[in-house]
Amino acid sequence: MAPPGRPTIGVFDSGVGGLTVLCALVERIPDADYLYFGDTARLPYGSKSAATVAHYAVGAVRYLQDQGAELLVIACNTATALALDEIKSAAGVEVIGVIEPGAEAAAAASRKRKVVVIGTEATISSHAYRRALEARGVAVREKACPLFVPLVEEGWVEHPVTEQVARIYLAEAFSDDASDADVLVLGCTHYPLIKPLLRRVAPEHIAIVDSAESTALDVARQLGRQLQVEPEPSSSHKSSAHTKSEQRGVPHLKFFATDSAEKFRKMGTRFLGLAVEDVVHADLKE
Amino acid sequence: MAPPGRPTIGVFDSGVGGLTVLCALVERIPDADYLYFGDTARLPYGSKSAATVAHYAVGAVRYLQDQGAELLVIACNTATALALDEIKSAAGVEVIGVIEPGAEAAAAASRKRKVVVIGTEATISSHAYRRALEARGVAVREKACPLFVPLVEEGWVEHPVTEQVARIYLAEAFSDDASDADVLVLGCTHYPLIKPLLRRVAPEHIAIVDSAESTALDVARQLGRQLQVEPEPSSSHKSSAHTKSEQRGVPHLKFFATDSAEKFRKMGTRFLGLAVEDVVHADLKE
Repeated sequence: MAPPGRPTIGVFDSGVGGLTVLCALVERIPDADYLYFGDTARLPYGSKSAATVAHYAVGAVRYLQDQGAELLVIACNTATALALDEIKSAAGVEVIGVIEPGAEAAAAASRKRKVVVIGTEATISSHAYRRALEARGVAVREKACPLFVPLVEEGWVEHPVTEQVARIYLAEAFSDDASDADVLVLGCTHYPLIKPLLRRVAPEHIAIVDSAESTALDVARQLGRQLQVEPEPSSSHKSSAHTKSEQRGVPHLKFFATDSAEKFRKMGTRFLGLAVEDVVHADLKE
Repeated sequence: MAPPGRPTIGVFDSGVGGLTVLCALVERIPDADYLYFGDTARLPYGSKSAATVAHYAVGAVRYLQDQGAELLVIACNTATALALDEIKSAAGVEVIGVIEPGAEAAAAASRKRKVVVIGTEATISSHAYRRALEARGVAVREKACPLFVPLVEEGWVEHPVTEQVARIYLAEAFSDDASDADVLVLGCTHYPLIKPLLRRVAPEHIAIVDSAESTALDVARQLGRQLQVEPEPSSSHKSSAHTKSEQRGVPHLKFFATDSAEKFRKMGTRFLGLAVEDVVHADLKE
């Protein structure tokens, strides 16, 4: 059992990408127990129907609740876009997705009331960010960037190829009637890893909103916490997370993966910027 | 029913990649009926267990047999690597995978008895090409090229970014003890689309073996056909397939996709180089 006041937070993603959300959570709320579920055997969710994604996601969050999760974070843009309502109905605890916090932060940051959202093909086609932003009176240009995820997974986070791809994608994203947009939303959990590169490539006056950070802030608010330390806006989230957790509480992290635990450990450490050690293979029925 | 002497060939892949194999088949054997099954709702197979891949593949080839397939081509490197024996046991007809024909052609082409195989992470980790080539007394360097599939799917088949990525991958592939290899095997169904680019980037003395072409040749042999026309070694397979099919027989093509038929039609036309028209949504139970 968790000590009083120390929450157990369940984080769900289709794979390792959601570890950037976990990283932001650990930075904001270090004195908590975290249970992270990566459905690595069944990823990617992007090519699957809404019904299938909902079915998988509900199974995973039930698993997290059985392990003791008292609050659930859906750190997967596709699952949030396609299945958040179903997950909320199935879960008996508070559920927070990544899209609303990202849209809220973008709407707050945009003076021009015009925002560019980048994400995977699946997230962009769902138009979930468009709906969330238009509901806040903000115009949206959506741009799928399908090469960013494989580039990050190849480890090319500071690589001339990635920079060239980013220049091409962002030029398209900010073209024509989006040329006066003043906010760029990172609508994919992999993108925080190339945030320093995107910061260099994007026009200087553009504010970058990272859904992972916005979500962590929202969770902290939900937990009624007073935030004492503001994270540096675009510096390496890895070292700062590590230092802060040592200064304040110490997070306990436990991981569940539906595919190989070893593979998760290897890839996960790169995404989290902290050692991914306690990985358990979770076998869910189809 | 097919007219006498006109075979019905079933082609199975996890998605659209196998259409490059269908393209090579149509080029070699134009007077045939083709049934192509793309398991687009459940791709990619690479992250799935051998048991799951076998289960999916057996379901798909049974579907193709119900539709009249008299010979089956497994145009998917992962399914061939992980499940060929199980598919052969389940099918009552001849089954040909892509790996043995590719390995056979590479072994025949290599004077140095040293070959480089490129493919997806899943195909390379399976070491199926290594086993097939070592059994023929050929030394192998295997190199995963995970960015090629998303680059091809982005449509960047003749793009400076793809060329830069190819230079990096091939430099690694032919480094050190593989520097005297004289054959490059394209061990992924997406790679024939960047064959002209790879031809430019690879050292001139390297022979490129395309598993799609080798497999088509093997199928033609199985059908006991006399080959009248040799395909141009590295020219666009698209236009030549089209011209030849008009000169000789006319292939009939029918497609089944487990995800959206419209998506398959759009992406498929680019892979096949022929119009993908007759697409039926196939619903397979898990």
